[in-house]
Amino acid sequence: MTGSPSSRPRVVSGMRPTGRLHLGHLVGALHNWVPLQETHECFYFVADWHALTSEYADASGITGHALDNLADWLAAGIDPERSTLFVQSLVPEHAELHLLLSMVVPVPWLERVPTYKEQQLQLADKDLSTLGFLGYPLLQTADVAIYGARHVPVGEDQVAHLELSREVVRRFNNIFGEVLVEPQPLLTPVSRLPGLDNRKMSKSYGNTIDLADDAATVVKKIRQMYTDPKRVRADIPGTVEGNPVFMYHDAFNPDTAEVDDLKARYRAGAVGDVEVKTKLAAAMNALLEPMRERRRQFVEHPDRLREIAVEGSRKARVVAVETMERVRGAVGLRY
Amino acid sequence: MTGSPSSRPRVVSGMRPTGRLHLGHLVGALHNWVPLQETHECFYFVADWHALTSEYADASGITGHALDNLADWLAAGIDPERSTLFVQSLVPEHAELHLLLSMVVPVPWLERVPTYKEQQLQLADKDLSTLGFLGYPLLQTADVAIYGARHVPVGEDQVAHLELSREVVRRFNNIFGEVLVEPQPLLTPVSRLPGLDNRKMSKSYGNTIDLADDAATVVKKIRQMYTDPKRVRADIPGTVEGNPVFMYHDAFNPDTAEVDDLKARYRAGAVGDVEVKTKLAAAMNALLEPMRERRRQFVEHPDRLREIAVEGSRKARVVAVETMERVRGAVGLRY
Repeated sequence: MTGSPSSRPRVVSGMRPTGRLHLGHLVGALHNWVPLQETHECFYFVADWHALTSEYADASGITGHALDNLADWLAAGIDPERSTLFVQSLVPEHAELHLLLSMVVPVPWLERVPTYKEQQLQLADKDLSTLGFLGYPLLQTADVAIYGARHVPVGEDQVAHLELSREVVRRFNNIFGEVLVEPQPLLTPVSRLPGLDNRKMSKSYGNTIDLADDAATVVKKIRQMYTDPKRVRADIPGTVEGNPVFMYHDAFNPDTAEVDDLKARYRAGAVGDVEVKTKLAAAMNALLEPMRERRRQFVEHPDRLREIAVEGSRKARVVAVETMERVRGAVGLRY
Repeated sequence: MTGSPSSRPRVVSGMRPTGRLHLGHLVGALHNWVPLQETHECFYFVADWHALTSEYADASGITGHALDNLADWLAAGIDPERSTLFVQSLVPEHAELHLLLSMVVPVPWLERVPTYKEQQLQLADKDLSTLGFLGYPLLQTADVAIYGARHVPVGEDQVAHLELSREVVRRFNNIFGEVLVEPQPLLTPVSRLPGLDNRKMSKSYGNTIDLADDAATVVKKIRQMYTDPKRVRADIPGTVEGNPVFMYHDAFNPDTAEVDDLKARYRAGAVGDVEVKTKLAAAMNALLEPMRERRRQFVEHPDRLREIAVEGSRKARVVAVETMERVRGAVGLRY
């Protein structure tokens, strides 16, 4: 479409392997990542060190989640032939750049990151007073800068986070010369879906549909889904707006005529919840089934998955090593 | 003396390459490092990343100082055949371990390190509010733990610093299993010498005798050295205690009979400053001359110096890579 991958602008994006992926990851990330492969040279990574910042007290699941998430990426259409898929900890140069960045970045810059205090409060059951958590945004900066990425796909809510990375890169370049590329935000649509119970979608609330859920589980979960609580009978007019069942229809049911018809009848009190939910489950399973099938092939061949992770990391590392060679030269640490 | 190097307990110690080495480094470190080679397996390193924490605003001199300091070590009797001499940044695994340690160490532990606030005040001309400066003690912990060192040679004043490293290692092992060795202090004699002007010896005060100074410079510097200010004439009795000229005699003049005689006559007002200082300069040059000669050979062959640094770093890295392999396994990040 736009020439060879290497002539395209490079993007970097990652995901923390802290659990199974669910619909939130699909609409919030993967549905943006897949089409970017047509226009950009994509580096997508499993951020296992980032997972460690919150999961250090029980890190035993990280590697398993990493490979499981990778299977979901592949199932969703991320192509290891076109994109570089890698594991952060398999490219240890990220840690070296993080250390060098830390030398020039004032602690207050990091304390002021809005998510810093916020996450500490939200995850109050975890001790996030660590240096690793404070340095998190610098590791993110290293993740992007080490590939010279021009763009980072972000939702509008993450632009502030990227702004810090840009400031850090500017300060580093200011001191050591123009050696790192300042990343620009590539604004991607933010589709925020509520969980099945209408709270924030989160595995800790148990209100997700996971990409690995089988068809029967999806039917069951949708049957129990929160909907307009005032509609105690099918003939009472219901509210469509803000109703998670219809938000899911909008997001996942490609048959817009069917969705419009259901909405009209719902508003008129002329449809039962069972019909609305059965049709949603059918649409959802139609979307997920081919992904499940592809996912199954990878999960059944963990060696192939591991090979993709290791081979992609090897490719990523070639770029990271080159960057660090230049960075060491700029900083003045070359022997 | 005590078997092959590998059966001996391992020690690790480093020096920041921020300038030329002077007598303070000789008595404070090298005079301890040299004999340790007889009893321990020694890893001595140029802490160039640590230098960067304070020198980042002008890092251009670090590499030059690193090689120059290495020449002084070799001149002082550090033997690259017996000890592993290396450059910190040439073993990037230190950065990876530093990052992993940072995940489990609360920021307040680091803020409480006595030298943290102290150094920020002392070096007020440098902006030490950085994350790198805050994380400095963790990088030191990584420097030691990555070689499984049982001992760190420290003066009594540095025991508190090492105590933090021990706590960090215990916490890491507590979370991930017994994977790192908890280092013990190996108390070494602290010989604190004042500078030529009786202030703290420091290159920033310009009150040092450098190991690279030639004989004439040593004579000249000693001639201008601070001594008992009340002794305006040679026949006035002088004070020996706390008098830097006699502290230097005690430290560097092996002819104790000569030193005792000078002290007695000084106290009695029966010796001129010129004689006391001339004899000190002679003793000092007798000590330094063979070092200068060895130093010259290395400085004239920078390729040989570089080779020692690179080869030693390669040897150190073999150990560091093994440790990190185990650490990754313990943390649970192995693919």
